[in-house]
Amino acid sequence: MTPFITIEGPDGAGKTTLIKGLVSLLKEQLTVPLVLTREPGGEPLAEEIRDIILDPTHTQLDPRAEALLYAASRRQHLMNKVIPALQQGQVVICDRFVDSSVAYQGYGREIGVEGIIAINQFAIEDHMPDLTIYLDLTAEEGIKRIKEQRSNEMNRLDREEIAFHERVVTGYRVANQKAGDRVVTIDATQTPEAMQQEALNIIKTRFPDIF
Amino acid sequence: MTPFITIEGPDGAGKTTLIKGLVSLLKEQLTVPLVLTREPGGEPLAEEIRDIILDPTHTQLDPRAEALLYAASRRQHLMNKVIPALQQGQVVICDRFVDSSVAYQGYGREIGVEGIIAINQFAIEDHMPDLTIYLDLTAEEGIKRIKEQRSNEMNRLDREEIAFHERVVTGYRVANQKAGDRVVTIDATQTPEAMQQEALNIIKTRFPDIF
Repeated sequence: MTPFITIEGPDGAGKTTLIKGLVSLLKEQLTVPLVLTREPGGEPLAEEIRDIILDPTHTQLDPRAEALLYAASRRQHLMNKVIPALQQGQVVICDRFVDSSVAYQGYGREIGVEGIIAINQFAIEDHMPDLTIYLDLTAEEGIKRIKEQRSNEMNRLDREEIAFHERVVTGYRVANQKAGDRVVTIDATQTPEAMQQEALNIIKTRFPDIF
Repeated sequence: MTPFITIEGPDGAGKTTLIKGLVSLLKEQLTVPLVLTREPGGEPLAEEIRDIILDPTHTQLDPRAEALLYAASRRQHLMNKVIPALQQGQVVICDRFVDSSVAYQGYGREIGVEGIIAINQFAIEDHMPDLTIYLDLTAEEGIKRIKEQRSNEMNRLDREEIAFHERVVTGYRVANQKAGDRVVTIDATQTPEAMQQEALNIIKTRFPDIF
């Protein structure tokens, strides 16, 4: 089966730029088709679930209910988009997956990692990514970049946002250590071009058959 | 805290009739207020989640995604309806709860019990019912009653429905054995009046302080 690759990292790490450059390099060099996706990824039911999560009027949404909705949306996207693509011999690159839930909801929202892992294990069964590329950045540097990305009037982060971001970075790093060689870390202080090249090399080394 | 009581049983066991009669008896005799509810129970977000589950056009809904949506809806209903009522000193009677997911999704849909328990444990944390009244009926008798309840043209059950119903009954019975004294079983072949009286007596014996 073709590989299922996820890209992870905290806000500010440059995930969007990396994915854009990497996909363009891969499309030139791969011998098999590539699908770039992200949850809910155009899966109609996953999108309906996501709409409930993101509706700004839903201030009453409990954090654990939110985590269960993310897991439900993930399941739909996995079963109806990711797995069919892999079965058709396509390489799948997915922008965020289970690790984001561990970092953002388990650590960031302080629900706890064990529970988040339990519901996601239920959701994805044994369909873990074959490779996860993690863009690593200190919490301090991430916060600096998030401020720079915001407009001048809006570039202050309140104490809660900073603490949340710090927990997310910690969460990713702790989870990565437990994940073994599924997760490969890229230093996100490099230039975008260097990061893209490094990500390409990682994929080439791990999956030489698809080039 | 006032007790949280759930009523469970397979289709055809007479749950609706029991609850109606029991609530009417309780309202005469309780010294504290009573809330009768069922998921999603008028909790707006739980209802939106339920709408996704029950939308007949959603033939693509994966069984595990469905189970996660039920758990999310349960969480919302629990946090925003059941727990506030208990905190206000009301007795809560809930028509179906976690045991239904174990029986219908774990056994009926054959997703497996462990996973269903894991996601529901995440959803409800330690808020298990104080008492569950289970209406017990053999699968054979249940199927007979379901057929009788349907109109003449519609009273055939296909083989799949019968097998599903049999798994649900088995699931409830196995789960009840593990639940210890939280679950009290009522023989559902009795008259409705006898069942209502028995249910009332169980609640009186277990929670004398609320009478």
